[in-house]
Amino acid sequence: VQVELLTTGSELLLGHVVNTHTAFLGRELFALGLRVGRQVSVPDGPAIGEALAEALGRADLVIVTGGLGPTSDDVTREIAAELLGLPLEFDPALLAKIDGYFTQRGRPADPLSRSQAMVPRGAFVLANDVGTAPGLALEAQGKLVVLLPGPPRELQPMWRDAFVPWFRARGDRPPLFEKNWCIVGIGESRVAQRIEAPLRVLGLPEIGYCARPGEVDLRLVSGDAALLERAAAVVRAEFGDAIATERHETLEGLVVRLATARGWTVATAESCTGGLLGHRLTNVPGSSAIYRNGWITYADTAKTSELGVPAALLAPGGPGAVSGEVARAMAEGARVRAGADLAVAITGIAGPGGGSAEKPVGTCWLAVASARGTEVVQKILSNDRETFKQMASQTALDLLRRALQIETSV
Amino acid sequence: VQVELLTTGSELLLGHVVNTHTAFLGRELFALGLRVGRQVSVPDGPAIGEALAEALGRADLVIVTGGLGPTSDDVTREIAAELLGLPLEFDPALLAKIDGYFTQRGRPADPLSRSQAMVPRGAFVLANDVGTAPGLALEAQGKLVVLLPGPPRELQPMWRDAFVPWFRARGDRPPLFEKNWCIVGIGESRVAQRIEAPLRVLGLPEIGYCARPGEVDLRLVSGDAALLERAAAVVRAEFGDAIATERHETLEGLVVRLATARGWTVATAESCTGGLLGHRLTNVPGSSAIYRNGWITYADTAKTSELGVPAALLAPGGPGAVSGEVARAMAEGARVRAGADLAVAITGIAGPGGGSAEKPVGTCWLAVASARGTEVVQKILSNDRETFKQMASQTALDLLRRALQIETSV
Repeated sequence: VQVELLTTGSELLLGHVVNTHTAFLGRELFALGLRVGRQVSVPDGPAIGEALAEALGRADLVIVTGGLGPTSDDVTREIAAELLGLPLEFDPALLAKIDGYFTQRGRPADPLSRSQAMVPRGAFVLANDVGTAPGLALEAQGKLVVLLPGPPRELQPMWRDAFVPWFRARGDRPPLFEKNWCIVGIGESRVAQRIEAPLRVLGLPEIGYCARPGEVDLRLVSGDAALLERAAAVVRAEFGDAIATERHETLEGLVVRLATARGWTVATAESCTGGLLGHRLTNVPGSSAIYRNGWITYADTAKTSELGVPAALLAPGGPGAVSGEVARAMAEGARVRAGADLAVAITGIAGPGGGSAEKPVGTCWLAVASARGTEVVQKILSNDRETFKQMASQTALDLLRRALQIETSV
Repeated sequence: VQVELLTTGSELLLGHVVNTHTAFLGRELFALGLRVGRQVSVPDGPAIGEALAEALGRADLVIVTGGLGPTSDDVTREIAAELLGLPLEFDPALLAKIDGYFTQRGRPADPLSRSQAMVPRGAFVLANDVGTAPGLALEAQGKLVVLLPGPPRELQPMWRDAFVPWFRARGDRPPLFEKNWCIVGIGESRVAQRIEAPLRVLGLPEIGYCARPGEVDLRLVSGDAALLERAAAVVRAEFGDAIATERHETLEGLVVRLATARGWTVATAESCTGGLLGHRLTNVPGSSAIYRNGWITYADTAKTSELGVPAALLAPGGPGAVSGEVARAMAEGARVRAGADLAVAITGIAGPGGGSAEKPVGTCWLAVASARGTEVVQKILSNDRETFKQMASQTALDLLRRALQIETSV
C-alpha cells in the first residue's frame, strides 16, 4: 500500500506552526503496518487540489490534514469530493451534532457550520469530540482518502478513536503484533546499541524508537507473535527497572494508576519546572484521588515561607537553592504540609541565565520523600529551557513510579 | 520567485523526528521576501532524486535538507550535482577543514569524510561551524539549489551565518509586508465573519487564521504597505481590546514583558489547571523577575490551608469549590500570602467526571486581584480535559494582561 500525507495550511509554510502531524501520523501508520512514502505541505488555496491530484496518481491511501473548518480558506472537503467524483450531500444529523457543540457551551450556533455538515456521498464520518469539524474517509476509484482536521488536539483523538477502529475493521490485511516499552533515563542511541544486535540475531526486522525528553519509547512490530515474545524477553532482560511501563500509558498516567491502586497521595514542590509536574499529573483523569497539593516555590523566599526550607541553606555560604539539601527540605516540607504519603521536589537551573562553572545550566536536584525516608538525586539535563523542564518533570515522575513500584508489582 | 523545500530523511516519515526545518526556513525565507510554495519530505534513497527533479521543474529556488553526511545513505550532493549537470570536484582545502574538526576534538579523522569534500563545480560552500558536512549553493540552468545538513543545530547557524549574507549580496527582491494579531476569547469563525467582508472591500487578498485553544492568530500579508495599514486599522477597530498583542509573542511572554516593564510581581492559585499556568509563565526566560509563588490547591482542604479560603464556602450548602466566591478568595489569599502586586486564581471542572446539571464539565471561575480590587469572571470552556486546561490558563493570562494594560500602553 502506497501512503502519502498532504498537510495543508499557509501557517505551516510561513513557519507560524511546526508540522507535528507528519511525525504523529508516521508513527501511527507504522503501527498499522504502513509506511509513509511522501509528505507534502502546500498553502491554503488551489495548490491543495494540485497536490491531492498528484498524490492520488501515486498512492493508494492519501491522508490530508487541515482545511475542514468553516471559513473561506477551508476547501479540502470540496476539493477531495470533486477529485473523487463524489457529490456533496447535506447531513442534517451532522449539523445537529455541530450545533449541539455550541449550545452545550451556551453559545449561539454558527451559521457557517453548515459547510461542515456537507458529506461526500458514501463517506464514513469520523466524529470530532473536541471541535466542530468532522473528519471524513472517502473511498472511490480504488483509493482511500482520509480528511482530518488541522488542530493536533482534534486530529489525534479522532485518529485513535474514530479512524483506527474503522480502518482495522476493514480487515483486508494480516494482523500485526506490537509491543511497547517506555524506557526512562537512557538515551536513544544507547538503547539502540544495546538491543539491535540481539534482536537482529532473533530475526526481528522492525524496531521503532521514539525519543522524547527523558524517555525512549521502544516499539517492536511483527507478524509472528512467538518471535515477538522472544524479542520482548530480550528487551526486559536488557533494561530491567529502567522500563517504566509496557502499557500505552504516559508516565504520569502510570504514577496516578499506581498511587490509586495503593491508596497513596502525592504532593509536589516545584521550583525550576514551575508547575509542569502538577500540570502533567492533573492531565490524568481521576488524579484528584491522589493529588491534593502542589507548591510552585520559584523564589527562595517562597521555599522558606511555604515549605519551611531553612533560610540558612539559601543564604550566602550555604549550599544554595539548587542543591541536594534544598531539594530534600522541599520534599520533606511538602510531604508534612500536605499530609501526603509521597512528595517529590525539583530545583534546578533551566537557563538561559543563572548558570555558573560550578552549577551549569541544566543542573537539577530532585528528592522524593516517603515514610521510608528521602532519596536525593542529581541530574545534568538539557541546556534548552523547555527541554530541561520536560526532562526534570520526567525524572520526578520516574522517581515517583519507582517509589510506588517498590512494594507494588505493576 | 517560486520556492520549494525538500526535507529528506526516513526518520521524518517514520515520525522519529519532528520536522522543524519547514517552520524555521519558512520564517527565514519570509524575512527575505520569499514564500515557500511547497514542502516535500521523502525517505532516504532514490525518492530524493525524483522529488528534486520534480521541484526543479516547478521552482526557481529549491532548498534541500539532509543527506550530506558521510554514510552510504547520504546521497543528496551527488544527486543534485547530477541533475544540474555539474561535475563533482575534490576540494583539498575543504577536506583539511573537515579533518580539523576531528583533530580539534582529539579524535582521529574520519576516512569517510572525503565524500564531504566533493564540491559540484562552481558551487558556493556554506561553512559548517558545528559539524562536518558543509552546505552548498549550486547555480545552474537558471535554478538555485541550496543543500543544507539535516541536524537543526547545524542547519540553523549555517543558514544565518553563511547562506543569508551570501544570498543578500546577490541583489534585492520586492519586500512582502505582514501583520499579526493575537485575538483572545473570540472563536475562529466569528473572527472571520467580522472582518472578511470589510477586508475584501479594501482589496486585501491574503487572510490567514491559526486557531489555538482560547485564541485566534490572525495574519494579513500584502506587498502593498499602505493597503496593509488600512487593513490593520479595520482589524483594530473591530476587535479592540480583544487584541492581546500585535507582536510575535505568546500570551505568557506578553504578561512577563508587561509585568517586568511595570516592576510588578504575579502570583498564581490554580485548582483545575493543576500548575499549567505556572508552567506557561515559567517557560518565559526572565520570568523569575516577576513570578515567585504559585499554589496548586487541587483539593478543598488545600484551598483552605494554603490560601485561607473560608471553609464555609466549601461546606455543603455553600457555593462550592467551583464558584466566584472561591475564585475570589483564592486570588486574594494568594496575593496576600505572596506579597504580590497581582494574583490570579482558576477553579473549574475539567472533566470527564465531576460535572452536574448546574455546573457542567467546562465550567470555570477565574479571579484577578490587585490593589484596585478583585475581578471575577465565569467561562464555559471545552469539555475536553486538556483543551479545557489550555483555555482556562489562556483566560487567566488574558485577565493578567488586561490588568497590566489598564495603565500601561503596550
